[in-house]
Amino acid sequence: MGEAAEEFGGVTPDAARRLLLGAVEAFAERGFHATTTRDIAGRAGMSPAALYIHYRTKEELLYQISRVGHERAVRILSAAAEGGGSAAERLSTAVRAFVRWHAEHHTTARVVQYELTALGTEHYAEIVGMRRRTEEILRGVLADGVADGEFTVEDLRGTALAVLSLCVDVARWFRTGGPRTPEEIGTLYAGLALRMVGAGPTRSSG
Amino acid sequence: MGEAAEEFGGVTPDAARRLLLGAVEAFAERGFHATTTRDIAGRAGMSPAALYIHYRTKEELLYQISRVGHERAVRILSAAAEGGGSAAERLSTAVRAFVRWHAEHHTTARVVQYELTALGTEHYAEIVGMRRRTEEILRGVLADGVADGEFTVEDLRGTALAVLSLCVDVARWFRTGGPRTPEEIGTLYAGLALRMVGAGPTRSSG
Repeated sequence: MGEAAEEFGGVTPDAARRLLLGAVEAFAERGFHATTTRDIAGRAGMSPAALYIHYRTKEELLYQISRVGHERAVRILSAAAEGGGSAAERLSTAVRAFVRWHAEHHTTARVVQYELTALGTEHYAEIVGMRRRTEEILRGVLADGVADGEFTVEDLRGTALAVLSLCVDVARWFRTGGPRTPEEIGTLYAGLALRMVGAGPTRSSG
Repeated sequence: MGEAAEEFGGVTPDAARRLLLGAVEAFAERGFHATTTRDIAGRAGMSPAALYIHYRTKEELLYQISRVGHERAVRILSAAAEGGGSAAERLSTAVRAFVRWHAEHHTTARVVQYELTALGTEHYAEIVGMRRRTEEILRGVLADGVADGEFTVEDLRGTALAVLSLCVDVARWFRTGGPRTPEEIGTLYAGLALRMVGAGPTRSSG
């Protein structure tokens, strides 16, 4: 769980942080509905009663995990979108960073991506808002590239969603110790994303 | 659950089929680990004891769902790969059909894609073999396109995986009644896949 320890490093106090790490681990292994607050407290080396000092419900833990994960997604994409360079350079940076996060933090990312429907109504609405924001950021980079004549994209919304989707799905299939590093997948996918917007290197084969 | 009823239509007897439908519904809603055989039997309108006539364990139900789903994936991709036409036409057909399946059968597809790790060792190995087969089929189409000079792909394995991954992730975000039909997403994604292999329509913008 080194990957999650890094992601939730900013959460204080220490007990609240350890409970989030226990929740990520339990939700990823067993799913939200099969996890009890007792499981989570146990993984954090605490009593079930101690958990309730920090989180009112199991859903509150899922919400905090989702919030941290989606804030990270918005930050990664904003940094790339607002960084210098051409639209192609910014798209490439965004895809590399987004892929790397989904590979390196694949356990956290799976919880963030696949347990959304277990959130309560208000929390779900808040997270959906953050998801819209990530889509808008990427769509903005694509629109810039089209305006500059770098990209050819007929369906900006659908293409932006597809590029994000390709990155997100890395969390599903990535295995630590597999044949490719997160960095290598990021490089491959940045090239594929450039092609998806009509800006890829299109050397003739041979 | 009309989507699953269609997918498991060939399962007999009727009770075994109804149990599979109940299991897809329960696993999709609550996850494998939070689902009991009592839940599944109840959804099929049967007693827990009646379930064991057809399936020895809950894992056996998951295995049957995974097997049917993966057999379907192999069939869809084989039919496209072995169909007539250029590599570009076959890739386009494969992507359209694979996307359409993941959109139309998104509940089944989520169980098939996200609950794999709950399979027993032997069942898991069998399913992994079928997944390798789907990758090989798509890689074959890409290799044909490269050999024919239609495609420019440096990393056949990584690009084939990425195209499949893009299609699979449709199951995560697709909502029935959303802004795009399965057919429309299939058309968009077929165009994106052609671009990913360096064969997309690359008209200049404007």
